[in-house]
Amino acid sequence: MNTDTHYLESLARLARYWIIRSTTAAGSGHPTSSFSATDLMVGLMFGGVFRYDVENPEYRNNDRLIFSKGHAAPLYYALWALADVVSEEDLLTLRQFDSVLEGHPTMRFPYTEAATGSLGQGLSIGVGMAINAQKFDSLPYKTYVLLGDSELAEGSVWEAFDSAREYELSNLVAIVDMNRLGQRGETMEGHNGERYRAKCEAFGWDVIEVDGHSMESIQAVYRQLESQSKPTVILAKTYKGYGVSFLSDKDGWHGKALNDEEAEKALEELGMVDTSLRGEIASPEMYEIDRATLEGDSEWYPRYDVGEKVATRKAYGQALQVLASGYENLIVLDAEVSNSTYAEKMKEVDTQRFLEMYIAEQNMVGVALGLSRRGKKPFVSTFAAFFTRAFDQIRMAQYSEANIAFIGSHAGVSIGQDGSSQMAIEDIAQFRTILDGVVVYPSDAVSTLKLLEKLYLHQCISYMRTTRMDTPVLYTDETDFVIGGSETLRSSERDQITVIGAGVTLHETLQAYESLRDQGIEI
Amino acid sequence: MNTDTHYLESLARLARYWIIRSTTAAGSGHPTSSFSATDLMVGLMFGGVFRYDVENPEYRNNDRLIFSKGHAAPLYYALWALADVVSEEDLLTLRQFDSVLEGHPTMRFPYTEAATGSLGQGLSIGVGMAINAQKFDSLPYKTYVLLGDSELAEGSVWEAFDSAREYELSNLVAIVDMNRLGQRGETMEGHNGERYRAKCEAFGWDVIEVDGHSMESIQAVYRQLESQSKPTVILAKTYKGYGVSFLSDKDGWHGKALNDEEAEKALEELGMVDTSLRGEIASPEMYEIDRATLEGDSEWYPRYDVGEKVATRKAYGQALQVLASGYENLIVLDAEVSNSTYAEKMKEVDTQRFLEMYIAEQNMVGVALGLSRRGKKPFVSTFAAFFTRAFDQIRMAQYSEANIAFIGSHAGVSIGQDGSSQMAIEDIAQFRTILDGVVVYPSDAVSTLKLLEKLYLHQCISYMRTTRMDTPVLYTDETDFVIGGSETLRSSERDQITVIGAGVTLHETLQAYESLRDQGIEI
Repeated sequence: MNTDTHYLESLARLARYWIIRSTTAAGSGHPTSSFSATDLMVGLMFGGVFRYDVENPEYRNNDRLIFSKGHAAPLYYALWALADVVSEEDLLTLRQFDSVLEGHPTMRFPYTEAATGSLGQGLSIGVGMAINAQKFDSLPYKTYVLLGDSELAEGSVWEAFDSAREYELSNLVAIVDMNRLGQRGETMEGHNGERYRAKCEAFGWDVIEVDGHSMESIQAVYRQLESQSKPTVILAKTYKGYGVSFLSDKDGWHGKALNDEEAEKALEELGMVDTSLRGEIASPEMYEIDRATLEGDSEWYPRYDVGEKVATRKAYGQALQVLASGYENLIVLDAEVSNSTYAEKMKEVDTQRFLEMYIAEQNMVGVALGLSRRGKKPFVSTFAAFFTRAFDQIRMAQYSEANIAFIGSHAGVSIGQDGSSQMAIEDIAQFRTILDGVVVYPSDAVSTLKLLEKLYLHQCISYMRTTRMDTPVLYTDETDFVIGGSETLRSSERDQITVIGAGVTLHETLQAYESLRDQGIEI
Repeated sequence: MNTDTHYLESLARLARYWIIRSTTAAGSGHPTSSFSATDLMVGLMFGGVFRYDVENPEYRNNDRLIFSKGHAAPLYYALWALADVVSEEDLLTLRQFDSVLEGHPTMRFPYTEAATGSLGQGLSIGVGMAINAQKFDSLPYKTYVLLGDSELAEGSVWEAFDSAREYELSNLVAIVDMNRLGQRGETMEGHNGERYRAKCEAFGWDVIEVDGHSMESIQAVYRQLESQSKPTVILAKTYKGYGVSFLSDKDGWHGKALNDEEAEKALEELGMVDTSLRGEIASPEMYEIDRATLEGDSEWYPRYDVGEKVATRKAYGQALQVLASGYENLIVLDAEVSNSTYAEKMKEVDTQRFLEMYIAEQNMVGVALGLSRRGKKPFVSTFAAFFTRAFDQIRMAQYSEANIAFIGSHAGVSIGQDGSSQMAIEDIAQFRTILDGVVVYPSDAVSTLKLLEKLYLHQCISYMRTTRMDTPVLYTDETDFVIGGSETLRSSERDQITVIGAGVTLHETLQAYESLRDQGIEI
């Protein structure tokens, strides 16, 4: 393969050519945000560093590249065109209704690792993928995340920095495209690389600075990664719109396509391109899949007696113990409250598959998504109220076809004394907004256990709401529970009204039933 | 006033005594998380540094103290008991249903600056209060925020750090109670003060380290603040449960009250306390309120013609120009998309009252809350989809009796090409979960303008959804719009069905009306 600097520069020129052509054809898009990262990405993908089987995007040992700055989608698609898996004709369908080349990458495009477009989420997803490589799949693949400098203002990015250090992810690389300009003007830090360096180092990462438009320097930096021993940031000084004089480092060009005339002028400046050029991506090492597969063959099962008092949050912990021994892809994540959610029970079965994520819910959800994209089934738990903290990440996860179960404890006003800040009131509404999302609200330990297995097997985003207080067991092992189902506990031909309860309110409903029956009223 | 070190130590002992008594009486609560911060807080409030008129909690030049670690509520209430505005008897009602002394501070307790309990939110609120002092009210009061070390894992805290540096808030002090222990074990950084120092300095703050249990050192540190020239962190090494040997630095005591026997043992260790001791809080300088008050006396008003095409987001920008000249307390915050939301129009009227918050929505909402608590009316705008990022902050703001209008643009699928990540689908459900929250979805420029004035005057959390694309003006100035209202645009006695639309869907509904009428069907 040709990794000669001049050859890579020609590829970068062709990428820019396609970026202009595709965005101008679309009449919208982000050419200048694409230009700033073009040299960095061409150098990565075609410089011999990045290893990926283009025939098999899902191959388990492929390196992973996440465009956290999803608005650089025109560049992303151009890279895959350079890799010869997208045609020039396809590129020109950018942003059309039927095209898989959406304005920000989604899973409709088969090379997308995760749908992005809400900034500050990609690094957490990368942490999840890197943890997967290091801890669960024991594979040498690396995860690369391209970030814009603007998005370093998002706190969730720093949660991801913390988390990568904590998990010692020497297989994770963040590439910061420091182009100085945000959507409506300069970023807080501008081209102040020193400030970024200090922040990243304070969070325990290695930092390498580079001129993001010198292919030679870029190649040298990637070579340094061969001896990577820590999570590493490549801090690249770039210019938004670099390559075209009237765009480069100019304000007012964010998210704007060039009109035909401007495009022609820009293409003229780029000079001759050879549209037949293609780059080669290095192949990954091949690994056989040799892990034992245990799916659903658990022996032990907790037995609950009807009337026995068990909090559903506790039943969640007990269920984890059952499910963990039956399902090897089950990974538990918790945000520093595992002794309250009972997620800590997982540690009694398998400490490896319990990930402490500290008080950083946004990163926790991002990491879960990264794991999910690599074939794991994360069970993510915290107080239900605190999932509001990660609503953007949960919302975005639906576009990445996430397969994640969220388990929120301490739901509703029944938690009492701890007060409103700890009470989930919004959680059902929140999770009901997710496309194909499932919400279950079990009323006892048996239904909790059985529904958790259903959620494990359900390939989508699901949510279970658990209760803090002990509630009596209502069901026996005979009862089957289905997603979208319900049980009728009391009925007669003289019923005057139907009362529906779920979770803790079901128990109140049963009391209402008793007290009304004493008054001769059947419900 | 007595600010003698030994006297302050006696006050701290009494505070600890009350913390034990109140939490043991309640049977729950967080005594150990209170103990670690007791010396720091007693030293602040009664050491002559903190200035506050206890007779007048709302006095505009009072210093502000926010307990970001809201679970240290028993300490918070004990401090106000030391200030003699809460009785010992009241303290013993902690966490009871009718008591204003809730498990985490809420506005029912008159000294609460902002309801806390979801970690990592207090510093942003403090930034808002400090900006208010510096930029809007021109007052010398300082804002102090007590943070737990665990909550520094929340990314939103680092957003607040960035923001305080950007606004050069030399009137803001963060006090980090570095007690090493979270709820279920050690924090990521433990007692590694160096790491915290590096992080805070990298974010541009001054850092002062202190032994958080040496009253003499604490007093010395607060004296240093007199020459504060930057936002400053006091990084205090403390021990959770300090003061009682079997609690101090011990795991497993988070959120646990002592039983009667343990309490007796603890009180014995504390030694003799004099429950009649009280501390004195220094008085603030007094300022007359001398700002000109202009409320609703704008002259200029945009005129829209029926049928004219104006995007409601653009009408928002135009409305800001009208309202800003009429209402001096209107402050606009935007998260780096003001050229898309049209919030930038505010700058044409008053650059001071436009706050660029960069891509950090959580901090933006916290800052807005801080401003709202100090009497301003923030209009907070970004793409509607990105309010999901700050759902926890918005949820918590309702418990702080926030008076904030959120304006979300680019709502719904009609934005098309930019794709799902930018489309607000969840926003109406999200804002409808807020107690007393208001959601309005205007269909044209006239209703946008008129409803924005209603939202300005409405003292609560409200949300307006605006549309990206141009839509025809439907109403004239004659139409009055009310919160909770709607307009009937077409009707006849032969109507077969009622169709309800809002925002962009109303225009589709009107087209449906036309096309059905052509088929002889009246709706």
